[in-house]
Amino acid sequence: MARWEPDARGRMTRAALDLYTEQGFEQTTTAQIAERAGVTERTYFRHFADKREVLFDGSHELEGTVVAAVVDAPPDAAPLDAVGEAFALAASALEERREFAARRAAVVAATPRLQERELLKLAALRDAAAAALRERGVTEPAASMVAEAGVSAFRVGFEAWIASHQERPLAHEVRDALAALRAQAAV
Amino acid sequence: MARWEPDARGRMTRAALDLYTEQGFEQTTTAQIAERAGVTERTYFRHFADKREVLFDGSHELEGTVVAAVVDAPPDAAPLDAVGEAFALAASALEERREFAARRAAVVAATPRLQERELLKLAALRDAAAAALRERGVTEPAASMVAEAGVSAFRVGFEAWIASHQERPLAHEVRDALAALRAQAAV
Repeated sequence: MARWEPDARGRMTRAALDLYTEQGFEQTTTAQIAERAGVTERTYFRHFADKREVLFDGSHELEGTVVAAVVDAPPDAAPLDAVGEAFALAASALEERREFAARRAAVVAATPRLQERELLKLAALRDAAAAALRERGVTEPAASMVAEAGVSAFRVGFEAWIASHQERPLAHEVRDALAALRAQAAV
Repeated sequence: MARWEPDARGRMTRAALDLYTEQGFEQTTTAQIAERAGVTERTYFRHFADKREVLFDGSHELEGTVVAAVVDAPPDAAPLDAVGEAFALAASALEERREFAARRAAVVAATPRLQERELLKLAALRDAAAAALRERGVTEPAASMVAEAGVSAFRVGFEAWIASHQERPLAHEVRDALAALRAQAAV
């Protein structure tokens, strides 16, 4: 096996998703994932701490995108707009990977241990977005409430995007979810 | 040991919290919890499925309170008001147990496996509240967004309540958090 592994991480992620879909998360071993991806198990553990992390490879990048967009939003942008646009921007990274995202979401929904990990990642994302809002001068409890509204819109928008057979962009679904909350807050 | 155990569940919960605080979650066994609570390990497992559930004994009741309050809210109540008051009502069950709630929150925050379980419980609570809103005729994505705003207000309000040394009721903190979101949505 070559030391240099082009897209080894991507191969491991796809192999894990395939195996979790075919035979279930609990029945799959890291050795099987490594074998199917054409790497050693040692290489697997150099990239991912456990059997769950392999399905969350994009979460660090997602958080970076959201935080940067909140920090860099125009100074006069309202906090909810800054957060909404940050998550709409983060959505663009997923637009081209709808089929992968849908299969991944199905495996996560069917596996409590993956659900728990996903919720922990979303909580970290929420806390990072809240910290970015506080950097913009937004005080508590507003910063935490607005940050979580952004994560909610991302989650709810994602579910609508996956469930729909239309070719509507995820970013539109995210904006719609946030607009629905705004409309309810105005009642 | 008597077959009839007055408040055996409460004793097990308190014993678990004491042990998790003293020696850590990972280092504590169900046998130790049972021993300190004065019950057999078999009795422990009749009440709780694992080492985590013992700290979530109130979650089913909390969900019941929230769902009932949303369903029973006046027909003309706005969804966000119905949800906000449901969580303010749920808060009243905790008002008398602030010291216990604070110690429990500290153990959960220090233990990733407990954090994950807590997030799963809050997600279930959110989904139940969203279903109750749909029963009231609220459509998606509004129902999910409003339900999650209620859970957010409960979580953010809870953190403010625990952190504060004032004698302010949790219900007030929950209402304040939701009011902050409303104010941001109006910008």
